[in-house]
Amino acid sequence: MSLVVQKYGGSSVADAEGIKRVAKRIVDAKKNGHQVVVVVSAMGDTTDELIDLAGQVSPIPAGREFDMLLTAGERISMALLAMAIKNLGHEAQSFTGSQAGVITDSVHNKARIIDVTPGRIRDSIDEGNIAIVAGFQGVSQEGKNITTLGRGGSDTTAVALAAALDAEVCEIYTDVDGVFTADPRVVKKARKIDWISFEDMLELASSGSKVLLHRCVEYARRYNIPIHVRSSFSGLQGTWVSNEPQGDRKVEQAIISGVAHDTSEAKITVVGVPDKPGEAASIFRAIADAEVNIDMVVQNVSAASTGLTDISFTLPKAEGRRAIDALEKTRASVGFDSLRYDDQIAKISLVGAGMKTNPGVTATFFEALSDAGVNIELISTSEIRISVVTRADDVTEAVRAVHTAFGLDSDTDEAVVYGGTGR
Amino acid sequence: MSLVVQKYGGSSVADAEGIKRVAKRIVDAKKNGHQVVVVVSAMGDTTDELIDLAGQVSPIPAGREFDMLLTAGERISMALLAMAIKNLGHEAQSFTGSQAGVITDSVHNKARIIDVTPGRIRDSIDEGNIAIVAGFQGVSQEGKNITTLGRGGSDTTAVALAAALDAEVCEIYTDVDGVFTADPRVVKKARKIDWISFEDMLELASSGSKVLLHRCVEYARRYNIPIHVRSSFSGLQGTWVSNEPQGDRKVEQAIISGVAHDTSEAKITVVGVPDKPGEAASIFRAIADAEVNIDMVVQNVSAASTGLTDISFTLPKAEGRRAIDALEKTRASVGFDSLRYDDQIAKISLVGAGMKTNPGVTATFFEALSDAGVNIELISTSEIRISVVTRADDVTEAVRAVHTAFGLDSDTDEAVVYGGTGR
Repeated sequence: MSLVVQKYGGSSVADAEGIKRVAKRIVDAKKNGHQVVVVVSAMGDTTDELIDLAGQVSPIPAGREFDMLLTAGERISMALLAMAIKNLGHEAQSFTGSQAGVITDSVHNKARIIDVTPGRIRDSIDEGNIAIVAGFQGVSQEGKNITTLGRGGSDTTAVALAAALDAEVCEIYTDVDGVFTADPRVVKKARKIDWISFEDMLELASSGSKVLLHRCVEYARRYNIPIHVRSSFSGLQGTWVSNEPQGDRKVEQAIISGVAHDTSEAKITVVGVPDKPGEAASIFRAIADAEVNIDMVVQNVSAASTGLTDISFTLPKAEGRRAIDALEKTRASVGFDSLRYDDQIAKISLVGAGMKTNPGVTATFFEALSDAGVNIELISTSEIRISVVTRADDVTEAVRAVHTAFGLDSDTDEAVVYGGTGR
Repeated sequence: MSLVVQKYGGSSVADAEGIKRVAKRIVDAKKNGHQVVVVVSAMGDTTDELIDLAGQVSPIPAGREFDMLLTAGERISMALLAMAIKNLGHEAQSFTGSQAGVITDSVHNKARIIDVTPGRIRDSIDEGNIAIVAGFQGVSQEGKNITTLGRGGSDTTAVALAAALDAEVCEIYTDVDGVFTADPRVVKKARKIDWISFEDMLELASSGSKVLLHRCVEYARRYNIPIHVRSSFSGLQGTWVSNEPQGDRKVEQAIISGVAHDTSEAKITVVGVPDKPGEAASIFRAIADAEVNIDMVVQNVSAASTGLTDISFTLPKAEGRRAIDALEKTRASVGFDSLRYDDQIAKISLVGAGMKTNPGVTATFFEALSDAGVNIELISTSEIRISVVTRADDVTEAVRAVHTAFGLDSDTDEAVVYGGTGR
């Protein structure tokens, strides 16, 4: 009998009606002859409400207690989901992350899974039950404390359990029909992707696509667990993410998988850096010591007349203040002229393994942006991705232009968005 | 260093302000040189809200999942309380019932504690932490499933932990200043009791006093753990419940501890029962098989002319329908005439060990009721309690008259009620 792991996000179980709808879908999978393990997030806004409560009693909540608090959310949703399934005449048991054997390191609020020992889950499904597991949580190997995995943690829980149980597939149910060739909120003619490789999905996740987080896809690739991203609101086939197209789904590898965009970053330019060995290193050491995550980095050739160069990089807006403060402290030793901070930027990325063997891709990409009157400020590339930074105001036009230029537009406006976004 | 267990009910931690107020009180106890273990209930109405959610997804929620759901409430309050304490500069760690070693039987929703193995709690307080423990919950010895202890379970958790840790006292913080000689909502001149014996407290709890539940007092008596019932809103000394008055608190054993009343019961009278051996047994076997809990039972002498008698008993109103149905099925075999159901009754009880050696108590009690024009319908007595059933309409007048007759009235209206009632 094949084993399926299904994961439902917070928007799918936002209220009693949602929970009952999800329960029906789970029972259908069981009736189709599968063993079913379900990973569930907290209901709707529960987590945000708990975070708000914590802020009311303590400005900087302690990690251990914060995790104890947040894990109450999944405890509620998983128990209700098990009740709803039993009410449909099927046996179900809910399990905390600890009971399910999700073992993590001891880094509270953003723990990493280091092992999964799903003995109780295996026993439960072998007895004929549907097992419901709390997403987003585990228990630390040392100390036996409750931990949480950070944003997107429920997806990772699902993939990790699928790997440990040797599941046939990990189904991630969300509020969209799958992964699209662009954000359907921006590009009405975005097409649902039937199949995408792990590699392209990783690049999309790094480039602003929010359907799956990088960490979850990375885990699935490592253990070769096919992910099926689909909607809990419709009955449609979604997007398969795997090494190879699944079974009889013979799908050609597309040249371009999709266009992603990201408006959550800012750009810092360090102006007038002496073009000597070690200067860039000093700058990025200061940034790293401040625990700032940088993304694109560009250094122009130095002007021959001055021997000075400019270094630009992008980073999350939330870390902007920290980066500027860290850089100011190095101004005297590095000897740069000034800092420029710009949070009105957008990053637009084109992703596709096919670009390796299609030399015209870069040219087409830049032509499309140029024709749309969009100015390019920074460029960075990987083997299967090209990213540019533009003005934030231009992002919609730029994404649409590129999407059309690569023939990704659907014949119809097919993209449907059902609700909010889960955890 | 002495060890104190404190328990705070839901009304004391109903919101962020309440949690911060309670945190200060806990820190004060720590500053006074005590090791402190705190048992906390779910915030305010959380439990009722979770029960409501369960009703929306399933008409009869399964026991195991229902317990998983409800225990989320204490997880939230205990984590927030630990955060609030740490915010005051003291170390605190929260523990689930399972982590605290509260081992129960496997009867979901009303499990009984069968052992407490508080190793982690002991380690935590020995390291200098304040330990916060979720009330109302445990883990079953077999199966390692999460269980709950039923209404009033947090008080029992506190007493059980106090016994296992050999605490000096178990302080139960609530929304009244202690145990009163009558319900302060009914008798404005009710006096706070400084000390009461376990035995008298058990009788009061059985007779409608809601400050402490019977089960909790019984546990404290068995392990000889003094309970101090007091308000989390005022700084006043409350009521000590113990075998002997504590330390320098030299308190005379009162003749009468208090007057309790209960309007949650109904009365069933089985009319015209043949006065033969085995008839009463058949009736009460039927009642027992229907899992109805009966309280007072009275059988009149039979009328010589007919050889028939009447049997009356009281029971919780909520079980009235079930009892009537069960009795109707025995009508043919027992051969009684009819059933009378009356839910407009009140039970008024006088409790005090002193009545054993004061023969005038019963007479004074009945005279007081008679002078107040209150008719007595049933009487039952134990060694240290007299209970009567009256019309529900008469309850306020009856309680006040008896309270005055036994000299229990305070010189002032001292009773203060601060909030709702917790779990």
